Amino acid sequence: MSRNLTVRADRIASDIDALAAITEPDRPWTRRAFTPMFLKGRAYVEKIFREAGLETHIDAAGNLIGRRKGRSGTGTIMLGSHTDTVPNGGRFDGIAGVIAALEVARALADAGIELEHDLEIVDFLAEEVSIFGVSCIGSRGMTGVRPDEWLDRQADTEAGRIDLAEGIRSVGGDPSSQVARTDIKAFLELHIEQGTILEKGKIDIGIVGAISGITRVEILVEGRADHAGTTPMGSRYDALAAASCLVLGIERIATELSHGASYFAATVGEFSMEPNAANVVPSHVRMLIDARCVDPKVMDDFVIAVSTLTKQTAAKRSVTISEPRRVSNNPPTPMSGKVTEILAASAARIGATSRPMVSGAGHDAAFVAKVAPAAMIFIASKDGRSHAAEEWSENDDITLGAAVLYEAVLELDKT
Amino acid sequence: MSRNLTVRADRIASDIDALAAITEPDRPWTRRAFTPMFLKGRAYVEKIFREAGLETHIDAAGNLIGRRKGRSGTGTIMLGSHTDTVPNGGRFDGIAGVIAALEVARALADAGIELEHDLEIVDFLAEEVSIFGVSCIGSRGMTGVRPDEWLDRQADTEAGRIDLAEGIRSVGGDPSSQVARTDIKAFLELHIEQGTILEKGKIDIGIVGAISGITRVEILVEGRADHAGTTPMGSRYDALAAASCLVLGIERIATELSHGASYFAATVGEFSMEPNAANVVPSHVRMLIDARCVDPKVMDDFVIAVSTLTKQTAAKRSVTISEPRRVSNNPPTPMSGKVTEILAASAARIGATSRPMVSGAGHDAAFVAKVAPAAMIFIASKDGRSHAAEEWSENDDITLGAAVLYEAVLELDKT
Ligand SMILES: NC(=O)NCCC(=O)O
Ligand SMILES: NC(=O)NCCC(=O)O
Repeated sequence: MSRNLTVRADRIASDIDALAAITEPDRPWTRRAFTPMFLKGRAYVEKIFREAGLETHIDAAGNLIGRRKGRSGTGTIMLGSHTDTVPNGGRFDGIAGVIAALEVARALADAGIELEHDLEIVDFLAEEVSIFGVSCIGSRGMTGVRPDEWLDRQADTEAGRIDLAEGIRSVGGDPSSQVARTDIKAFLELHIEQGTILEKGKIDIGIVGAISGITRVEILVEGRADHAGTTPMGSRYDALAAASCLVLGIERIATELSHGASYFAATVGEFSMEPNAANVVPSHVRMLIDARCVDPKVMDDFVIAVSTLTKQTAAKRSVTISEPRRVSNNPPTPMSGKVTEILAASAARIGATSRPMVSGAGHDAAFVAKVAPAAMIFIASKDGRSHAAEEWSENDDITLGAAVLYEAVLELDKT
Repeated sequence: MSRNLTVRADRIASDIDALAAITEPDRPWTRRAFTPMFLKGRAYVEKIFREAGLETHIDAAGNLIGRRKGRSGTGTIMLGSHTDTVPNGGRFDGIAGVIAALEVARALADAGIELEHDLEIVDFLAEEVSIFGVSCIGSRGMTGVRPDEWLDRQADTEAGRIDLAEGIRSVGGDPSSQVARTDIKAFLELHIEQGTILEKGKIDIGIVGAISGITRVEILVEGRADHAGTTPMGSRYDALAAASCLVLGIERIATELSHGASYFAATVGEFSMEPNAANVVPSHVRMLIDARCVDPKVMDDFVIAVSTLTKQTAAKRSVTISEPRRVSNNPPTPMSGKVTEILAASAARIGATSRPMVSGAGHDAAFVAKVAPAAMIFIASKDGRSHAAEEWSENDDITLGAAVLYEAVLELDKT
């Protein structure tokens, strides 16, 4: 990188490498929330927060926060992301955002700049789907939308079976008190794109206009378990064959919708079959669709199209297919227009190329947006890979992103 | 039934009902080989064998045998089937054949008939896919084709983890000695059809000309695990979508072959996917095809067509698909023409309608056929169902089948 930036690439690289080394050795880069490896990673993050002059604490929701007091203390500019990972992935997913945010604090300190506002760098607890089966636990908790019944969710840990309440206590939080923050003036999150738009377009920075809604749709197919040897091909009610029609139909519908105006993607990510015995015609299939869109209307169109598909398939194959059931439905979240503009202007000011985009993935910023103006920037993911050991982002790109955050913080502090 | 038969419908019905009562209460009609419930069923069968005047013993292969000595002792006429069941099925599958065979012995005794040949009624050990993952253990053992390495196969039982050798010992067999029988003059097995040909055609007896070969083919699909939220529809290597094309293609190929001259059926009975996580594009699928045919040439054609399909699908979807691998290959088994003719003639003699057919299912008779002239008759299965709680056959049909066996035994004894 030839640009002359206030943030330092070397510090970012060394911190990200240090965190990458804190992993289950045979499953890079695994540091799942609530595990000893996660706490080891957090201890390192807390140490570097302190070395940067930040006062650290764990909030009630279990988030690690490093604070730098501002002159007037009339509100908080918050930056951050998460340091937990999925199994076998996450070298940059989340971590890049935490370390870039920390680097902003360090660069401000290096430059001797005192902000008007308090500055907080945050490592959100359990952004990824955790051992408790749910995600964004820390950002939901901080914004008062963590469902109370989640606290009873169970998970097996090295220390035995615990519930989420104990899990939150184990990282230093207090599950009994959930209060939404009201002092956040703006929240900024840098994250890896996890897609290929920036890489293919050779663009430095993605300015995220909205975070996709995520709808999960369950479909149950019921055919008939018959003897695989003796049941003629024409007399079968094969749940797997019917489910295969659905999988291909869902892919076709999703592909058509993806050619529309708003981002759309759908995936059959869970699929299981019964009795799953070599010599028995499959009788039952359960599948779960994950659908992403920034337009609730298009999401509804998708569910309607899938419903039509299931009826056609059920009729054609004489099997029973349940009405597609929305088992979860997180609506899309627009980012703050004002903060997004500041980010775009900041990128332009330091000579970084940028483009508006939407996030197909969920992020902590979607929850913080419930209580404060929030916005995100993306930096490129090599080959679009994430949640995989191959996940890679260039340190120069992360550094450029940190520089955009730095500029934006200075700008936000003025307003 | 208005016919005047030597065999007695009432005894057959009461024995089949008595065995049906020996089941795991909440999973009718479960009596899996090597379980305490199986041994309870066998104790009952041994008791009724003895009450019929048969001398009982367990052979080295673990089969329960009831013997009635013949006048000259110059060979054995053997009748039988199996009393083990699949989980949740098997009210008549196997049991009907054992009880019909026993009824022949009882009817002979009632009539005061002494045969020239020894008569043996056999309950083969573990015809169904057992807790050790393999089937026809008793009929393979009796005919010297049980692979030695099978003895090391493990299974979990109420009494802990055991190997097949211990399993065979636990039912009274001796796994260390495997000697093929050479004294069997003829073997006859009555079995439920497990299909709909007899029912639809209103025909009493199916005269089985051949037992299908069973080929199992494994296919592995490898795509790429990508983020379900961020990976555009056009940039995916979705193993589930590719596998769905295969499932439908295999069904199409099998349906075409089933319209040919020889019986053909194929089923994707096992199907599993990784990582099977809601928000990850599926990366791996493993499927296992079960294919049945009486013509090895047609079976080869099937495997070739599937191989072509996998290549086309791999190319079209840019995924890796393994060359279809035959993980097991039991060739078809023609029944003894001479014994089959005797069975057909016997049916005609008592006024039963019959038709030639092939068996799509595997049977113990296929193994006995390796060492002796063997043949089978089928009686109707209601709605073709088997390996299911709904499995049903009419007692009159079983009785008529027993009468055919009785006639055939008398005929075979003359030769
Ligand atoms: N950013 C990210 O990978 N979030 C996980 C939740 C999801 O989008 O599936
Ligand atoms: N007759 C029967 O159901 N045998 C089980 C083996 C098979 O054909 O799949």
